[in-house]
Amino acid sequence: MKYIVGIDLGGTNIKTAIVSEEKKIIGKISVPTPAQEGPEAVMDKMAESVINLLKDSNLSKNDILAVGIGAPGPLDWRTGVVYSPPNLPGWHNVPLAQKMKERLKLPCFVENDANAACFGEYWLGAGQGCECIAVFTLGTGVGGGIIVFKQLLRGIDGTAGELGHLKVQRDGRPCGCNSRGCLEAYASVTGMIKTAIEGIEKGRKTILLEMCGNNPQKITGKMISEAAEKGDAFAEEVFYETAVWLGLGIASVVNMLNPEKVILCGGMIGAGERLFAPVRETVLKNAFEVPAQRCKIVPAGLGEDSGVYGCAGCALTRYYEEYK
Amino acid sequence: MKYIVGIDLGGTNIKTAIVSEEKKIIGKISVPTPAQEGPEAVMDKMAESVINLLKDSNLSKNDILAVGIGAPGPLDWRTGVVYSPPNLPGWHNVPLAQKMKERLKLPCFVENDANAACFGEYWLGAGQGCECIAVFTLGTGVGGGIIVFKQLLRGIDGTAGELGHLKVQRDGRPCGCNSRGCLEAYASVTGMIKTAIEGIEKGRKTILLEMCGNNPQKITGKMISEAAEKGDAFAEEVFYETAVWLGLGIASVVNMLNPEKVILCGGMIGAGERLFAPVRETVLKNAFEVPAQRCKIVPAGLGEDSGVYGCAGCALTRYYEEYK
Repeated sequence: MKYIVGIDLGGTNIKTAIVSEEKKIIGKISVPTPAQEGPEAVMDKMAESVINLLKDSNLSKNDILAVGIGAPGPLDWRTGVVYSPPNLPGWHNVPLAQKMKERLKLPCFVENDANAACFGEYWLGAGQGCECIAVFTLGTGVGGGIIVFKQLLRGIDGTAGELGHLKVQRDGRPCGCNSRGCLEAYASVTGMIKTAIEGIEKGRKTILLEMCGNNPQKITGKMISEAAEKGDAFAEEVFYETAVWLGLGIASVVNMLNPEKVILCGGMIGAGERLFAPVRETVLKNAFEVPAQRCKIVPAGLGEDSGVYGCAGCALTRYYEEYK
Repeated sequence: MKYIVGIDLGGTNIKTAIVSEEKKIIGKISVPTPAQEGPEAVMDKMAESVINLLKDSNLSKNDILAVGIGAPGPLDWRTGVVYSPPNLPGWHNVPLAQKMKERLKLPCFVENDANAACFGEYWLGAGQGCECIAVFTLGTGVGGGIIVFKQLLRGIDGTAGELGHLKVQRDGRPCGCNSRGCLEAYASVTGMIKTAIEGIEKGRKTILLEMCGNNPQKITGKMISEAAEKGDAFAEEVFYETAVWLGLGIASVVNMLNPEKVILCGGMIGAGERLFAPVRETVLKNAFEVPAQRCKIVPAGLGEDSGVYGCAGCALTRYYEEYK
């Protein structure tokens, strides 16, 4: 039996997992990313993490076919070069695949982290057995990934799947991508907080104000979630608003791809039906009936680990393509 | 050498073409659709049209591998049943593929007409050699089609590719699909006329008023085009507005698919740079730089005939899959 390693390189944590060729999860670990120490230190830590996990799993490098590394974009998945991810200071055109191969003496493949999460859900999560799925990762931003014809859609330059940058409102909220009215500007945690702040500035009453010490700039996604749990009407409304925006984005995807499933990832899905019910309602109301009825809108099957398992899955596929 | 027949069944005309297996265009004809006489008469006319074209081309049925028929949706491409297209009165659950097979004694395949147009552009038009394209058909509505991994994306129920029903404005203009703010409500000819009427109702000065005999409900797309040609500032602005909406929809598709080309079809593309320049400008401003620079936004290579050739191309592909 052979195995694959997945590494999910985030600005906060490095997650590493080992999966067998037959999709059996062997083990995983998570260590803090020494982001401030620059790329070489981060890559040393990634390699160390792999070695430690192999030891814990009673495996040696000879048991490993390949290593898949998910990194924040922009990056070139073909060459494995990472350009300048905003949350990894000092990273400029780092040949991540090459440098990890030098450290580990194993074939290394790099993927965009949201695409990896999508592949993870397809390979081992809620999208297993599907031909076409779309995955939305809801966090500081909104990432995305698409599987069509049972393949990850990377696009001709590797930039496909940016579901957070569907335009849902002309001349809408400014977005980090320099456009306006992107889904991300409304349906990310950041967007949800903005919706809350705008409401408060309009004089809405809410326990959020107390929770943030009367400083709306300090409101977090967690606070909104807690306030809604406590029955704060305004916080519930903020969630509902966020869900409607997300539902409109998903309705576009449903009309465009007619997918079997749309899978939502990220901390926000902890809100459960408070998020999912209005999302589903919005999709049913705004997409065509046949594809809307078809498409199941579900939470990630792998929880927080879609990315790390997806990295392993992508690497396995690419290993088969390139080495066999 | 073997040949395929394509039939593009529209509410106004039936177009029929013959193409060789090696993509050589042999001939085509167009006859009015006897739509008011109901489905049997329309199908008789389609069969007659095929027989006449074969005769004109000095071919017999033995030279034909298959017949592809593009029809307005909703329909089931697998079974070849057409449900209730709004512009074909009396059509309810017509087994079009089966009934044409009975008439012609040849394998018959049915496709959604916008998907067929997309495949036509990929097979013989502006999208030749591409791996991923998106096609927008701009008419009374906005249709669409998508090629990914060199395959037509029909979706799990055959409803994929509805690019006219991307949501571009929350709570925007009502759309024929019962949703609001769809691209079609702004970027179709109907949407463009609506934009003109709204402006006139707000008191804008334009030669359009004279052209429509002071009855704005009689404004046509052609009138707007002619007024813009004559330098009418308001008509130019209506075109610009329409192009910006279309550009926003295309920007979403560019971010999502990272396609090599976006191809525009339909009468509206006769406006040339008046349409294409602001569309391209809007995409460059609103999509990510790499995919926006990559994606060429071009007019249909087959003019009005993307659909009929696409029907032939789709039928050839399906014939190979099912009969070989």
